[in-house]
Amino acid sequence: MQTIRVETPSARYDVFVGSGLLRSLAPRIERIAGRLPRRIFVLTSPEIWALWGKALSESFPEPPLALFLPAGEKHKNLVNVEKMARQMIAAGGDRSSLLIAFGGGIVGDVGGFLAAIFMRGIRYVQVPTTFLAQVDSSVGGKTGVNLPEGKNLIGSFHHPLAVFADIGVLGTLPDRELRSGLMESIKAGIIRDRTLVRFMEEHVDDVLRRDPKALEKVIAASVRMKADVVNRDERESGLRMILNFGHTLGHAIEQVTRYKALLHGEAVGWGMIAALHLAKKRGTISSRQGERLESLVYLYGPLPPLKLRPGKLVAASGSDKKNTGGVRRFVLPVGIGDAGVVEDVTPAELESAAAYMLARAAERHA
Amino acid sequence: MQTIRVETPSARYDVFVGSGLLRSLAPRIERIAGRLPRRIFVLTSPEIWALWGKALSESFPEPPLALFLPAGEKHKNLVNVEKMARQMIAAGGDRSSLLIAFGGGIVGDVGGFLAAIFMRGIRYVQVPTTFLAQVDSSVGGKTGVNLPEGKNLIGSFHHPLAVFADIGVLGTLPDRELRSGLMESIKAGIIRDRTLVRFMEEHVDDVLRRDPKALEKVIAASVRMKADVVNRDERESGLRMILNFGHTLGHAIEQVTRYKALLHGEAVGWGMIAALHLAKKRGTISSRQGERLESLVYLYGPLPPLKLRPGKLVAASGSDKKNTGGVRRFVLPVGIGDAGVVEDVTPAELESAAAYMLARAAERHA
Repeated sequence: MQTIRVETPSARYDVFVGSGLLRSLAPRIERIAGRLPRRIFVLTSPEIWALWGKALSESFPEPPLALFLPAGEKHKNLVNVEKMARQMIAAGGDRSSLLIAFGGGIVGDVGGFLAAIFMRGIRYVQVPTTFLAQVDSSVGGKTGVNLPEGKNLIGSFHHPLAVFADIGVLGTLPDRELRSGLMESIKAGIIRDRTLVRFMEEHVDDVLRRDPKALEKVIAASVRMKADVVNRDERESGLRMILNFGHTLGHAIEQVTRYKALLHGEAVGWGMIAALHLAKKRGTISSRQGERLESLVYLYGPLPPLKLRPGKLVAASGSDKKNTGGVRRFVLPVGIGDAGVVEDVTPAELESAAAYMLARAAERHA
Repeated sequence: MQTIRVETPSARYDVFVGSGLLRSLAPRIERIAGRLPRRIFVLTSPEIWALWGKALSESFPEPPLALFLPAGEKHKNLVNVEKMARQMIAAGGDRSSLLIAFGGGIVGDVGGFLAAIFMRGIRYVQVPTTFLAQVDSSVGGKTGVNLPEGKNLIGSFHHPLAVFADIGVLGTLPDRELRSGLMESIKAGIIRDRTLVRFMEEHVDDVLRRDPKALEKVIAASVRMKADVVNRDERESGLRMILNFGHTLGHAIEQVTRYKALLHGEAVGWGMIAALHLAKKRGTISSRQGERLESLVYLYGPLPPLKLRPGKLVAASGSDKKNTGGVRRFVLPVGIGDAGVVEDVTPAELESAAAYMLARAAERHA
């Protein structure tokens, strides 16, 4: 097991990465919270609960009460948050209650947000069950739900008491989701950890056949990178921006395809291909570095095909809520293991990067 | 004008109390925020906007966009928060936008909550238009909405950039609302400010005919008391509990009457009568002090009649969400200008206090 400390001005907690965490959850929570809260709720999906609910419950003196959120972005909304808050009240939930967010990124975001606003904030822990949630969304305190107008437009910063990333739970994760999640690890390596880049290049087979040691290594390194960035910039004012590497066009792809055709990591994978091209053009990475990193993305593919027009993607990227005041921020890798933010990327450059990406997508699915 | 500083671990801002604040709002916000945000929204009620919208708007280069929340507790819900968030998105709101909560306590609570969760938190200012909101709900960072199961069960702690309590706006406040709000000032005096008690005893007429100097004095003293308590105990773990003086049975009255028969301050007024009785019985105040303070409550009455059974009130008081872990906390004045929290009040004592209060209510409306 590896333990990564998250330490921001407003919170301090640990992310545990390892095997067997699920079955020892109650004593672990007890150690951190002082004692087990009287009322414990688990926000989860019916699918995860069917597979892993028994394992999670068995260490608790009485089983936590499950609140179910159906799978899919369309259920990530305020109506469901209200519904679950009412279930908590009906079951005697109060300010001393604890919530366990047990599922993928959506469950984590909704669970964190529910904990943030239930009686003005209760404690919660994250038990992410997808690779993506383990390396990314469960760390950093961002919580939220969608509006019809866009994703995560409603939310809070609310840190968990702890994050328990159990490698074992990934055993039932569909292959496509694993590969998609690994894109965020590739991102982590590119922007901040060249050792991780090297490890992922050299252990493709181990990682993809879910060797626990290899997974623990990749997940812990990814979490360490994110925690390190979050620790220095909790509220996303500066450094935290670099976590958006690959996300400008990644989000644009998701928007244009209405979040239906690609998984988040897959869209980020393509977004990184585009961003690497722009970085090569600008000379922040060499051609050789660019090719090496592009190959790494493909090693953990396949990425789904894209049939889009570059102009449409560029237009969609402008509506990214992270662009405050109309400035178009863009993250570029600097060599391997570093990155910076530029604000002067032109629509033409963005369009050229999108065109490059779409050409690669066409080649690979010809 | 008086300025009261609120300073907690997570925020530092000023509460301005005085005349003419409304008409100079834009330059005041500009001074505090550095510059006027590109998009400014005003959450308000149609009634307040009709009376004071022009005065508020005139100092802004372009008028802020009004979002309307109809009056009444039943509109204080998540559905309306979502509706207004969508209006903000449609009007180009982003993370740099600013919200002005311009109305009574409900508008302040909903506005603060909307600001807390819109894009994970934007800046806002409070411009309270009722006496109660000026002395109480606009200070302290508590925001929230109701669930069908109870009030303020959903919410956040989110502090404003500043609070502007304009005495002039109280000119259109119905008399009953003024008297109701003054109950919170009496509370402030009893638990922490004997000078305020004396002032309110000696200036009943000035205050009730809304003499600006007298109002400014009472409001500023009330805000100073609350700010002082909030500064020491932002998250309501200990000291902040004393602000609940009169609220245990006050809330019970509101619940049993379904928040329809009495204004909040009126219920607190009766709740203080009951709490003063309990304090006399326990000897934390003398009989003479008890009578003096009870008279002060009546000086700012009349309080509406109550036709309830004591047992029902005691039962309702048990469901107060502030009673965590089943302990029944109760605030008792200690002399005049001090208070403490006890945890051993028995149901019999509570019932006797409720019976005393109901007897007074019957006498006064015989």
